[in-house]
Amino acid sequence: MIDLTGHNKRKRKREAAKRSAIGAPPGQLVADPQASQSRLTAIGLGDGAAKRLEGCTLVEALALRETCPKLWLDCTGLADIALVEQIGAAFGLHPLALEDVVNTDQRPKCEVYETYAFVVLRMLAGGEGEQLALFFGTGFVVTFQERAGDAFAPVRKRIDKGAPRLSSGGADYLAYALIDAVVDAYFPVVDGHGTRLDTIEDAIFGDIDAVQVPELHAMRRELFVMRRYLRPTRDALSAILRLDRPFLTTETKIYFADVQDHCDQLVDLNDTYRETASGLIDLHMTLSAAKTNEVINLLTIVSTIFIPLSFLAGVWGMNFDPSKSVWNMPLTQSPIGYPIALTMMAVIAGGLLLFFRRKRWI
Amino acid sequence: MIDLTGHNKRKRKREAAKRSAIGAPPGQLVADPQASQSRLTAIGLGDGAAKRLEGCTLVEALALRETCPKLWLDCTGLADIALVEQIGAAFGLHPLALEDVVNTDQRPKCEVYETYAFVVLRMLAGGEGEQLALFFGTGFVVTFQERAGDAFAPVRKRIDKGAPRLSSGGADYLAYALIDAVVDAYFPVVDGHGTRLDTIEDAIFGDIDAVQVPELHAMRRELFVMRRYLRPTRDALSAILRLDRPFLTTETKIYFADVQDHCDQLVDLNDTYRETASGLIDLHMTLSAAKTNEVINLLTIVSTIFIPLSFLAGVWGMNFDPSKSVWNMPLTQSPIGYPIALTMMAVIAGGLLLFFRRKRWI
Amino acid sequence: MIDLTGHNKRKRKREAAKRSAIGAPPGQLVADPQASQSRLTAIGLGDGAAKRLEGCTLVEALALRETCPKLWLDCTGLADIALVEQIGAAFGLHPLALEDVVNTDQRPKCEVYETYAFVVLRMLAGGEGEQLALFFGTGFVVTFQERAGDAFAPVRKRIDKGAPRLSSGGADYLAYALIDAVVDAYFPVVDGHGTRLDTIEDAIFGDIDAVQVPELHAMRRELFVMRRYLRPTRDALSAILRLDRPFLTTETKIYFADVQDHCDQLVDLNDTYRETASGLIDLHMTLSAAKTNEVINLLTIVSTIFIPLSFLAGVWGMNFDPSKSVWNMPLTQSPIGYPIALTMMAVIAGGLLLFFRRKRWI
Amino acid sequence: MIDLTGHNKRKRKREAAKRSAIGAPPGQLVADPQASQSRLTAIGLGDGAAKRLEGCTLVEALALRETCPKLWLDCTGLADIALVEQIGAAFGLHPLALEDVVNTDQRPKCEVYETYAFVVLRMLAGGEGEQLALFFGTGFVVTFQERAGDAFAPVRKRIDKGAPRLSSGGADYLAYALIDAVVDAYFPVVDGHGTRLDTIEDAIFGDIDAVQVPELHAMRRELFVMRRYLRPTRDALSAILRLDRPFLTTETKIYFADVQDHCDQLVDLNDTYRETASGLIDLHMTLSAAKTNEVINLLTIVSTIFIPLSFLAGVWGMNFDPSKSVWNMPLTQSPIGYPIALTMMAVIAGGLLLFFRRKRWI
Amino acid sequence: MIDLTGHNKRKRKREAAKRSAIGAPPGQLVADPQASQSRLTAIGLGDGAAKRLEGCTLVEALALRETCPKLWLDCTGLADIALVEQIGAAFGLHPLALEDVVNTDQRPKCEVYETYAFVVLRMLAGGEGEQLALFFGTGFVVTFQERAGDAFAPVRKRIDKGAPRLSSGGADYLAYALIDAVVDAYFPVVDGHGTRLDTIEDAIFGDIDAVQVPELHAMRRELFVMRRYLRPTRDALSAILRLDRPFLTTETKIYFADVQDHCDQLVDLNDTYRETASGLIDLHMTLSAAKTNEVINLLTIVSTIFIPLSFLAGVWGMNFDPSKSVWNMPLTQSPIGYPIALTMMAVIAGGLLLFFRRKRWI
Repeated sequence: MIDLTGHNKRKRKREAAKRSAIGAPPGQLVADPQASQSRLTAIGLGDGAAKRLEGCTLVEALALRETCPKLWLDCTGLADIALVEQIGAAFGLHPLALEDVVNTDQRPKCEVYETYAFVVLRMLAGGEGEQLALFFGTGFVVTFQERAGDAFAPVRKRIDKGAPRLSSGGADYLAYALIDAVVDAYFPVVDGHGTRLDTIEDAIFGDIDAVQVPELHAMRRELFVMRRYLRPTRDALSAILRLDRPFLTTETKIYFADVQDHCDQLVDLNDTYRETASGLIDLHMTLSAAKTNEVINLLTIVSTIFIPLSFLAGVWGMNFDPSKSVWNMPLTQSPIGYPIALTMMAVIAGGLLLFFRRKRWI
Repeated sequence: MIDLTGHNKRKRKREAAKRSAIGAPPGQLVADPQASQSRLTAIGLGDGAAKRLEGCTLVEALALRETCPKLWLDCTGLADIALVEQIGAAFGLHPLALEDVVNTDQRPKCEVYETYAFVVLRMLAGGEGEQLALFFGTGFVVTFQERAGDAFAPVRKRIDKGAPRLSSGGADYLAYALIDAVVDAYFPVVDGHGTRLDTIEDAIFGDIDAVQVPELHAMRRELFVMRRYLRPTRDALSAILRLDRPFLTTETKIYFADVQDHCDQLVDLNDTYRETASGLIDLHMTLSAAKTNEVINLLTIVSTIFIPLSFLAGVWGMNFDPSKSVWNMPLTQSPIGYPIALTMMAVIAGGLLLFFRRKRWI
Repeated sequence: MIDLTGHNKRKRKREAAKRSAIGAPPGQLVADPQASQSRLTAIGLGDGAAKRLEGCTLVEALALRETCPKLWLDCTGLADIALVEQIGAAFGLHPLALEDVVNTDQRPKCEVYETYAFVVLRMLAGGEGEQLALFFGTGFVVTFQERAGDAFAPVRKRIDKGAPRLSSGGADYLAYALIDAVVDAYFPVVDGHGTRLDTIEDAIFGDIDAVQVPELHAMRRELFVMRRYLRPTRDALSAILRLDRPFLTTETKIYFADVQDHCDQLVDLNDTYRETASGLIDLHMTLSAAKTNEVINLLTIVSTIFIPLSFLAGVWGMNFDPSKSVWNMPLTQSPIGYPIALTMMAVIAGGLLLFFRRKRWI
Repeated sequence: MIDLTGHNKRKRKREAAKRSAIGAPPGQLVADPQASQSRLTAIGLGDGAAKRLEGCTLVEALALRETCPKLWLDCTGLADIALVEQIGAAFGLHPLALEDVVNTDQRPKCEVYETYAFVVLRMLAGGEGEQLALFFGTGFVVTFQERAGDAFAPVRKRIDKGAPRLSSGGADYLAYALIDAVVDAYFPVVDGHGTRLDTIEDAIFGDIDAVQVPELHAMRRELFVMRRYLRPTRDALSAILRLDRPFLTTETKIYFADVQDHCDQLVDLNDTYRETASGLIDLHMTLSAAKTNEVINLLTIVSTIFIPLSFLAGVWGMNFDPSKSVWNMPLTQSPIGYPIALTMMAVIAGGLLLFFRRKRWI
Repeated sequence: MIDLTGHNKRKRKREAAKRSAIGAPPGQLVADPQASQSRLTAIGLGDGAAKRLEGCTLVEALALRETCPKLWLDCTGLADIALVEQIGAAFGLHPLALEDVVNTDQRPKCEVYETYAFVVLRMLAGGEGEQLALFFGTGFVVTFQERAGDAFAPVRKRIDKGAPRLSSGGADYLAYALIDAVVDAYFPVVDGHGTRLDTIEDAIFGDIDAVQVPELHAMRRELFVMRRYLRPTRDALSAILRLDRPFLTTETKIYFADVQDHCDQLVDLNDTYRETASGLIDLHMTLSAAKTNEVINLLTIVSTIFIPLSFLAGVWGMNFDPSKSVWNMPLTQSPIGYPIALTMMAVIAGGLLLFFRRKRWI
């Protein structure tokens, strides 16, 4: 299961460290010292054929554009700031956008420039949430990932199989396929939370003490974090749908609308699970309190019955000397004192039991 | 009563299983292995007459279009993916829409295409909530249900009786009648929750311990789930009302507005019952706490009175040897020691009772 | 005081029973078996004079239109479905609107048709909330009430007194006067809740146990129900103000704006009282908890002081035989054993009291 | 400090009494029997000079208009209904607006008429919140106050000093100055709440029991009431800013925007203090619960240690006769029985202490 | 760490004191008696060179405008009201804006005038939050700070280094750089809260009693205060982006959009941390309650087992005289009385243990 909370904790420290260097002019890129090694993969698409260059240089990658109408340039690892800047120069990307590529704590968003769109998403892959920066314009898609390991495996498989729409469609369709893969990767994670909640719910009616309330709290927080990714993702997709640029066809917009639909579904599931988690926390609290009440009830009944009886036993166990006067502990000297005492105790106990019964406490 | 929560749990597992096959190209249909057997029913309407073909083939069904100006094609069970694709081809339905037909965890929605509208609803029937996908255009209504058993019985009865508007009206009126039947089927379910809540409310003032708090929690959740169906259903109806296509007449829109009104009423009832359930949970907690307070009160009063008295009895029950000196337990050797001791105890008890009375604890 | 909650409970059952007959074609009227007997009252207005026909037939009522420029037809009781349909036919009312007249669980709303407006309101009268359906167009106002007894008494009085604007103004002004009377009838009910809350607030600072928390919960719910009437009433009035039809003059709209203002005031008061009720429930809980804490405090102090002392008394009350050896209970054999023991007990008690004092528990 | 809650309580009763006379035709003024005596003050402004007539008649006041381009007519006390109607006639004010002047439980609002604007505000003055109704048009400002004592003192002082803008500006600037004074009078009240909350916060960390929770609840309610005044006041100012009439210059709008800014600031402060009050109530509850837990902890530890020991003491204090058999209480007859018993007790107590220590309870 | 809450407390008193002087005409400046000494710094920018005058007079500063196309005039300390008014006159600033400069409790906002924009921000610097008022128009930026010490160090460093865009760009770019520095200064503060929350979260699972709940409450409040700064800051930036004046170029707007993005990120982080703080408070409460339940459980079990046993020991320790009759305490006289008694006690204890085990309490 993806641990967004813990991951965020670690990331927060690194980003905070970087940010402490505030005051740099805007658009100046500062590398995260812990960033992964950069590595380029270029895939040229067109005419039903696909050429893939793994670990190539930027020059080799750009050369592909001459033979292929469509280029997908994928850069994993952001340690090589110079490379990011060269890519930016090659495709005419705005320095502020490149700054967001390198600062990996952006919120999901879509910014529209004259000749390309810039999309930032959170990609759940390899047990962590990493930032994906995606640029697409006429004939190219450029993606920047924080590290190796991504949610694009199914897209690559379809390219390898020679999927017709991917090779014949525009770069916008390729961008759609990638974004769709990123959004769909949320489903197993959200589903995992759902399954875990179902298990906990069953447990709550079995043995309430076995339920891990902290886990429910953690899950609610995790879902809260995920919601903070999904909501702006939805807004980014709306921005894409409102986009009116030649590099995005109306046909492809129908596909983006479908991704937005998935996003709505995810938000919906997320809300349901958060509500469920809250409901289970509430229910646990209610059942816990009910159990404590039951315990206190028992304590009270037992105490209230036996405390007066023990007092009586204590009184008749006092050492006042009956030989000094007839006033001292007369009952203990009576031949039927003991039976009388026991009867009195039984009467008191019975009376209290009746009282509790009438109060509906037992 | 319909168990949406449990039903969703089971469904979630199946859908999660399907979704794990992410990466398929969009518009490619994947059947749920547990989907029901597909079965076609075609009803041709027009000129006051209706022809019904049960369990027919697609070819037979389409043949009806030649003789009847209006066709309702109903497909129950989604196991036969090929059939769904053929129906899609016959009526020119978009692949992405067909994908939503087969993936049965869509949110209620309305998508408008050039020649038809695509409506997804949650249908409460046969003890579960199933997905209904409905397409309507000029001269046809196509419905896809997850399984046999639906909320359309009243519409079929009216067709059999030869209802004039159903046979003479357009396909849009038929679509309205079907959607109206689906929405109206929520009323008995919501009413059932209302009745149950009334019963619980009466119980809460009778014997508070007999009230099943978990049931209230479950009901609140069930109502929450239902609300998640109703709100987007309302949005879907708004989309239909905003629709400006030749296949939907202004006259029929008045009827759709009426369905929307019912939807508002349902949301309203739902909100009321959720508020009521929350209020009852709160009230139960308050009354429970009040009872516990009363119990603790009694415990404290009894303990506080008897503990000092028992201590005194213990003191006078000690075995210090009075024969050794006159300082040892002098009172026990006094002729009126015992009455003095009992009087002291009575005075202390009385004083404490007065103290509690002044504190308004008894 | 009006008991909306209880009233709703009873009504809910009847409506649920009716609704179980779902599947009827739209616009077909089904009478509630428990509906009141129908009775017509027609008032013809114009030229400063008013003619009133009580318990008349529809034909007699319509005849008034020939002599009077303005007709108010009031139908109380909805048992006679045929009569409702005849009235609908006489004034050209839409079947779906008539269906809403007969199904008396509509939300307040305003629907605009070509020649008339259809307004549904909740009328508080005679201890219950009943549905008022009001149609107004050029020269007529038609009202349908669930039963006899209404909030229109002040309007009738003004008609009897020959109020100039009522007789000389249009039907829209008459409609305004009626709707104004319905809305103003909420004030005494809301004021009643305010007064009751003031009383409870005073009680809470007097004797907290005397406060009826369930009553506060019930009041909060009652106010919640009322709010669900007021909000859509406000929306209905907005719809009237946006209305652009010849049967509603700009002059009368100023009066409708005034009703809307009253509605805002009611919503405002309602919100305040709901907030107050919630605040009082919270305050009661806080004060209750404070009292319980005080009780537990006392229990702890008394127990903690006396339990060790009682233990010591028990030890010195053991029956170990001092004649067997000098090790057995030596203190009890000492001439000053008893004073020493009592001193030890006093020291312990004093120490504990000091400890509690320093902890600020006493 | 201003006691809005209590003031509202008293007012509510009077208004409810008045409203019970529902059914009066609209625009008919009904005096509150407890209304203050009416008194007119007229101030004529213009050419740097100001003429003031205190306690004048309406005729004298209107005569000022002939010599002064600008008239401020201030009416304190609403007992004289006839006077209100005459003023309304003299300035052409709408009967519905005059009705709102007399019914002093209006929400703050701004209504725009053809030749004047009608503003209703809540004025905090003299320890209570009273209604201020203000009309302003070309050359006149008319104000109606519930009673003597207002927030206008600073404006009068500036007039007396011959403030240039007040005498040379239009009536709109005078209206601005008055409304500004009313809004600014909220600051000391809100500041007062802030100061009181700071004090309580300090107290909460000192001696928690000394904190008056009911006061916090009362303060939260008071702030809630004030918010219900401020929000519609802000809306009223927005309405003034949107106003497009000759009697309001663009220049003066900048000043009104400044008042709106103050209003925002007040809403902001109010929200902060309400949040603070809620936070302090929460914190008090948390700290109280922590203290109770500590108390219960101590009770449990003391009880759990001494109850078993006391039981043992009780067992060895039983009167089974050792002379009857060697099985009866053998330890008490042993020469080292007492030391053994005490050792056993010490071991048990030590074990329990260790157990509690390991559980981190001590 | 910045202590906004405490700082606000101190400031509130001063501002409340100032405001008590209400009634001053608008636009009249009143100095805060505790305001810092005023000091001017002028920086002339242009042609890649920068001239800086520290502690200059206003005349010297204005003289720079003749040689440099761009002037940044920075005034720290607001004690010298006359200076503020002279600066206002020199740049044509509106009196109401100058009033806001001097009253340092404004909310962040942007007001647009004909020839300049007026921006108010909260600047976190030197351990406190101070108000920054910034005016920018063609060729000038004027900033007013409450006291020495600001967030502009990085901008000054870049000016000293001769940053090309700062010297060649317009005054709008300089304004952007300053506002960006102010907004970026929030990051370390927000990050600090995040780090502290992480620490507390770890502690909560270690030793719950060591967690400082009041600190969590304080942090939540601090974050609430910061949010009240950030939200209107975001609105102010939106206002700048909507601005259509010659002194703001489209190119610079892209940079302002970037600041807005940072603002969104801050609001987002802030919301997350507030949610986290609330979640930790909840979790602490849940775990505390769980611990108390455990404690009460133990108390009940120990008490319920030993109280009846102690009662029996008390009964057999009574001093009824067996020599008076055979009915008095027969068991104590039996040769096997003691073993029987102990066995009975063991059976009772065992039975209760079984009962608790079956109840799952142990």
